Amino acid sequence: MEVGEPDFLPPKIVKESLENVFDKGFLKYGQVKGMPIFREELVKFISKKFNTKVTPDNIIVSPGARFSIFTAITTLLNPGDEMIVIEPAWPAYKDCALNAGIKVRTINTTVEDKWEPSLKQIENTINANTKMIVLNYPNNPTGKILPEKLQDDIIELAKENNLYILSDEIYSQYAKGNWKSILSYNYEKSIVTQSFSKSHAMTGFRVGYAIADTKIIEKMAKLEALCLTNVSEPMQYVAMKALEADTSDNTNTVQKRLELLEQKAIDMGLEFVVPDGAMYIFARVNKEGFDGVQFANNTLEKGLAVAPGEGFGDYKNFIRISACQEETALIEGMNILRDILKGN
Amino acid sequence: MEVGEPDFLPPKIVKESLENVFDKGFLKYGQVKGMPIFREELVKFISKKFNTKVTPDNIIVSPGARFSIFTAITTLLNPGDEMIVIEPAWPAYKDCALNAGIKVRTINTTVEDKWEPSLKQIENTINANTKMIVLNYPNNPTGKILPEKLQDDIIELAKENNLYILSDEIYSQYAKGNWKSILSYNYEKSIVTQSFSKSHAMTGFRVGYAIADTKIIEKMAKLEALCLTNVSEPMQYVAMKALEADTSDNTNTVQKRLELLEQKAIDMGLEFVVPDGAMYIFARVNKEGFDGVQFANNTLEKGLAVAPGEGFGDYKNFIRISACQEETALIEGMNILRDILKGN
Repeated sequence: MEVGEPDFLPPKIVKESLENVFDKGFLKYGQVKGMPIFREELVKFISKKFNTKVTPDNIIVSPGARFSIFTAITTLLNPGDEMIVIEPAWPAYKDCALNAGIKVRTINTTVEDKWEPSLKQIENTINANTKMIVLNYPNNPTGKILPEKLQDDIIELAKENNLYILSDEIYSQYAKGNWKSILSYNYEKSIVTQSFSKSHAMTGFRVGYAIADTKIIEKMAKLEALCLTNVSEPMQYVAMKALEADTSDNTNTVQKRLELLEQKAIDMGLEFVVPDGAMYIFARVNKEGFDGVQFANNTLEKGLAVAPGEGFGDYKNFIRISACQEETALIEGMNILRDILKGN
Repeated sequence: MEVGEPDFLPPKIVKESLENVFDKGFLKYGQVKGMPIFREELVKFISKKFNTKVTPDNIIVSPGARFSIFTAITTLLNPGDEMIVIEPAWPAYKDCALNAGIKVRTINTTVEDKWEPSLKQIENTINANTKMIVLNYPNNPTGKILPEKLQDDIIELAKENNLYILSDEIYSQYAKGNWKSILSYNYEKSIVTQSFSKSHAMTGFRVGYAIADTKIIEKMAKLEALCLTNVSEPMQYVAMKALEADTSDNTNTVQKRLELLEQKAIDMGLEFVVPDGAMYIFARVNKEGFDGVQFANNTLEKGLAVAPGEGFGDYKNFIRISACQEETALIEGMNILRDILKGN
């Protein structure tokens, strides 16, 4: 119950299309931004799913959303620039920025504030060097989706300050409530990352993509060409076919599991905000001197893996519990957790 | 006849293994350095092929040799360091260095000197900031393999100056004469890159790897983890199975074609060194004011694509002719070339 990796299989069509890669001839070098037919299909998919208009030139396919995050941060910002990350957050945003010599300013949100940053907090963090703000809703690890008004205000603030908005939306498939893609704001300095990993249970395939203004895409493409020539063509073909699959079962499965985790977590007195989406519960353990890293090591010995909160920022007394297991395993895991918490 | 992309198909076992990816379960996140079983198989393959001893910890799988070149240069060198490239050379070495703020010193070799750098040239290029020398034999674009004594001396010189040796050996499958991998020197600061692109005609799959000391591999792995999490598992599985294939037919095919190109090139008076390997002829056109870029554009209109020499360094009056076509197409192409050269 540690990693964010769906336990279910990729869509059936993925299996069939793997069998066709050879005969269809998806074996050769290709365009760095991705196969034109794949990007055409992505345009249709995105237009339908996120209610926005994009062209194939607004898309770059990458080996996972992570690579798009890496190229966006590395090519759009310069050493000395600053980037804002709202924590708790997936550590890759910070890691990519630090690797590129970018200064990271973090905004700490709390379970008490329902993981909502205040506009004031963000305003106070912006200075002349601030060039980008990272958003990730539904959020990993909290599952939070921002209230629409707050999201609108943040976008407005970013526009006023001419900031890039890097919006990692790989959990959009698992949004329970009202969720609005950053694409819908039509902001020319936004970069939205997406992936097949979570939505289509294709973590190991390494296919993601970014959607942005053509000028941004061209910059990202230059670094991608340098690193990779292009993304694996067999994997692009397979991902393209996966777009045809109905993945609503995945959504339902994860939502049911999250509800189960929520109930169990409430029963044992964990403090958390009921997630609006994603695949996790991020919960505080109310114990004197609780240390998530140590705790995660202890639970591991007893057969339960959870991710310590420290990986996501200054959240030493939190753990992230992933819903990426069968219900019976989740129940068993939560029972182990309950017994450990009682016993200590 | 422009790109370095074999026209033949990947081994048959690649088709079969694509069909098995799903049932075998190669679908999930994995280790950044590559699947342990794949690296085990690579160890066997490398030990047999290059007559050297390595362990799985000496290997990192990457999405193409290019990515390993990128991570090696980026993680081993620091801005301000210098790197030596012997030209003509594939432009990626230089590009990766410049991207990382590394200064590139090029050594110009000539057709008159049979594309051999002198030890003196290299010695004169080394200074206190020099940290790496790039080797690429069999060479793209010339097909050159260095005489063993010269190679030994270069390695010795690199050792004396404590330089990293980045040896890109992706054309080793197409070495005609005596060729010795840099691995055979057991130098702890060498990094050898390999790929399935040329040897197994798997360009589009994007699977390569690097072989180096564990300390170097760990550094490269850190950046690879940041960028990619891991290399596509389906592609790793397929490449692993491809190791079982007998690829000697590929070698024979390319060698026969190169001989054909050589004969045609001699007939039309092109100046070149008969390649010792790889898949190209790099030839000078003896014409007043000849410009390879312009020429390549002209030939394209007449149905022949060649790569201008300028892409490989200061070789304006050279063109690279690739053997990656059927013989009939090669004959046709060389006839077009002959007619253009006569006509102008």
